Amino acid sequence: METRAAVAWAAGKPLTIETIKVQPPKEGEVLVEVMATGVCHTDYYTLSGADPEGLFPAILGHEGAGIVREVGKGVTSLAVGDHVIPLYTPECRQCKTCLSQRSNLCTAIRATQGKGLMPDSTSRFSCEGVGGSKDVFHYMGCSTFANFTVLPEIALAKVRKDAPFDKICYIGCGVTTGIGAVINTAKVWPGANVAVFGLGGIGLNVIQAARMVGADKIIGIDLNPAKAEMARKFGMTDFINPTEVGNDKVVQAIQDLTGGGADFTFDATGNVNVMRQALEACHRGWGESIVIGVADAGKEIATRPFQLVTGRVWKGTAFGGARGRTDVPKIVDWYMDGKIEIDSLITHTMPLDEINHAFDLMHEGKSIRSVVIY
Amino acid sequence: METRAAVAWAAGKPLTIETIKVQPPKEGEVLVEVMATGVCHTDYYTLSGADPEGLFPAILGHEGAGIVREVGKGVTSLAVGDHVIPLYTPECRQCKTCLSQRSNLCTAIRATQGKGLMPDSTSRFSCEGVGGSKDVFHYMGCSTFANFTVLPEIALAKVRKDAPFDKICYIGCGVTTGIGAVINTAKVWPGANVAVFGLGGIGLNVIQAARMVGADKIIGIDLNPAKAEMARKFGMTDFINPTEVGNDKVVQAIQDLTGGGADFTFDATGNVNVMRQALEACHRGWGESIVIGVADAGKEIATRPFQLVTGRVWKGTAFGGARGRTDVPKIVDWYMDGKIEIDSLITHTMPLDEINHAFDLMHEGKSIRSVVIY
Repeated sequence: METRAAVAWAAGKPLTIETIKVQPPKEGEVLVEVMATGVCHTDYYTLSGADPEGLFPAILGHEGAGIVREVGKGVTSLAVGDHVIPLYTPECRQCKTCLSQRSNLCTAIRATQGKGLMPDSTSRFSCEGVGGSKDVFHYMGCSTFANFTVLPEIALAKVRKDAPFDKICYIGCGVTTGIGAVINTAKVWPGANVAVFGLGGIGLNVIQAARMVGADKIIGIDLNPAKAEMARKFGMTDFINPTEVGNDKVVQAIQDLTGGGADFTFDATGNVNVMRQALEACHRGWGESIVIGVADAGKEIATRPFQLVTGRVWKGTAFGGARGRTDVPKIVDWYMDGKIEIDSLITHTMPLDEINHAFDLMHEGKSIRSVVIY
Repeated sequence: METRAAVAWAAGKPLTIETIKVQPPKEGEVLVEVMATGVCHTDYYTLSGADPEGLFPAILGHEGAGIVREVGKGVTSLAVGDHVIPLYTPECRQCKTCLSQRSNLCTAIRATQGKGLMPDSTSRFSCEGVGGSKDVFHYMGCSTFANFTVLPEIALAKVRKDAPFDKICYIGCGVTTGIGAVINTAKVWPGANVAVFGLGGIGLNVIQAARMVGADKIIGIDLNPAKAEMARKFGMTDFINPTEVGNDKVVQAIQDLTGGGADFTFDATGNVNVMRQALEACHRGWGESIVIGVADAGKEIATRPFQLVTGRVWKGTAFGGARGRTDVPKIVDWYMDGKIEIDSLITHTMPLDEINHAFDLMHEGKSIRSVVIY
């Protein structure tokens, strides 16, 4: 079949809207009509060329929601008409990692996904480019910047049908990453003191999850004081502006607010110096710091081992430690039940034709969340 | 009263055996006749002058076992004649950290202990030096290089009376550090794959604890192949010599042996480059690396945050995460029941007069464990 898609031809170039060919789903695969997709900073990172693993031409996008339109042979857990959220971290429930029950980093299709291909090592997308038809790579196993896309069954979470696509698409990445970091990776307990570095979309989701699980102090740290108002609405109790207190006094400020350090800290900046502050702002004896942000290629984190020997723990999280098929439907329920907020996090919506506008806003460093509605 | 003690007068100088004055125990304090004491690398580190917090003159030693000879006012948990092991990490059961039940790093007397003083900010030791009597500092709250020493009640573990002092003294530091790292900090599970960097005394105790809790592979890594034989007796199943496989291939070698990385790794070297290898040798998704070794002042650990984001956890341990009054008596029982081995770890015994010999052997880089028997 044919569909419209935003194609990334090369690093640093705007996307172009094309009519592409989509092959039907093969065994174990599913054709999804994407109804809405978020535009995430990771898409921007890859398009910019900074991602050393970026492949072109590709159909980017990994934060979608849609409807199953066709299922391939052997697909048992999904049927035509089901509402789904694509999962860039699949959940096969059969690999060593899934069976370990200790991690969400399913390895079933990791190798081919990293190469921009479906599990059989081929692409379902092709496009008439200069010099004839050529294959177009998948991206993060999702490629939600196409109106129709193909995914493996294990990379789709089935969700309730009354949930609005243009909101729950955000659960496909940012919402689950922030909320999952709190509930799956950190396992924040009621009464804990929490500090969140970076009050973008991920940081706000960390904050609302911390509130949901009953944290006491929820301290936000950001260079931009304009972000404090929104963060307070999401549950932030205290705000620290490093420019105001002095960047070298941030750890002390958190220790002062918490009587010795936070029980949990989260980095949602991707800045390795901030990651160090986040670790060192943890309470001696038991404080845990969770790295969520993705650092630039080649950057390293560092600290004195004394920080660990005196009881601080350094962890990280990917997709919030969430097992996609199991946990994503729950988060959709929480949204529909009003336990978590999404609507106000989405600052811009646009049709696919205007998707480059979302990238332009990110390029300007704006703290925004765009959603493309097909 | 008077007692014999080995006094450290200054960094880098040999200890001298002196007759010192010991004041009686004050309220909440206990006079202990030390029957045996290990000589630990930490004593060596402080005497060498490398410890930036070292104080002189001091009575070093923190790995002892002895008998209660007098109790101060208000002491309720100990009586004259009780056998005890001094605890450089006390357990007050009342401070924020003890009550948290999340850490063993009791803070009740931390400030004064760090200053070489008893909780009332004075010393119980004095010595006639050049220029008259002067106070001598306590060390790590223990000072077991004196035949009689004074400790707070909360810094003494009461142990069974049939356990030999010249063996269980080692439980006061090295044994508990290694065993506790496995059972308290890492919580190694049956069937886990474990890698231990450094096959000195701590490493061997990690190994025997891993065996005790039912680990599968127990991989030892050391530059000295002569250490492999002893390690195998303690439970090591596989040995890696970085000189043989290439230092940059150690992580790969562990991944090959374990099908992707160890579930738990332990650094017992104090070398920050090794700490990094230990982290990176952990299994993707859930592997945890525990820093046990104490790094040189100012040294830092580093890695790419990707290592954490993909599920590895970086932790540390002090005194094996053991709550001294609660856990040390259990480890004495395990020794007496034959569940753990200590005798063969002790390579040298000597009277107090010859204690400098123990320091000379460490200075030569020998892998030894000396015990002074009073």
